[in-house]
Amino acid sequence: MMEKIDHIAIVVNNINRGVDWYTKNRDCRVKYQDSSWALLEFENVDLALVLPSEHPPHIAFVDESIKNGTVHRDGSESIYDHDTFGNIIEKIKYKKDQKNKK
Amino acid sequence: MMEKIDHIAIVVNNINRGVDWYTKNRDCRVKYQDSSWALLEFENVDLALVLPSEHPPHIAFVDESIKNGTVHRDGSESIYDHDTFGNIIEKIKYKKDQKNKK
Repeated sequence: MMEKIDHIAIVVNNINRGVDWYTKNRDCRVKYQDSSWALLEFENVDLALVLPSEHPPHIAFVDESIKNGTVHRDGSESIYDHDTFGNIIEKIKYKKDQKNKK
Repeated sequence: MMEKIDHIAIVVNNINRGVDWYTKNRDCRVKYQDSSWALLEFENVDLALVLPSEHPPHIAFVDESIKNGTVHRDGSESIYDHDTFGNIIEKIKYKKDQKNKK
């Protein structure tokens, strides 16, 4: 069985300008936006825009097995890992039904 | 209408070892592999592994409007662009029905 990539995160130096650029140049929907990050929805995967001071660029997978991760304000829990080639991977666990409510 | 992200590409220093790592640690399928690049299929999006000497990390979107791009051996045509924040974007046009045959 194949799994889904939950989201991809890339770094921009200004979230509002990043959202402007992507919504003007690509066909996507703004799922969440504040001054520190934004989540853009594409048909098949979400693209997060983050600030360099807050998060590294990464690829996120849902992983129900993680323990003692960072708990975010929305109740999701995650840990950062890496693929041994320098690419950062986030393993994230959502609260039950959280993902569908977004 | 929302568009799909065609693929994401990340850099690894050895394609075979990269494929080994992802197939052992994540649930994905190898769609293509040679010594210079590989394409891993996840349920919702493809993840390309590329060498640092060949391609930069990037996010790829299908764009039928591109002209005078680089034509690849498989007939696809692409140009690299950027999002003005340092993230590289590939715009790719496939030969008719090519994407479905992969």
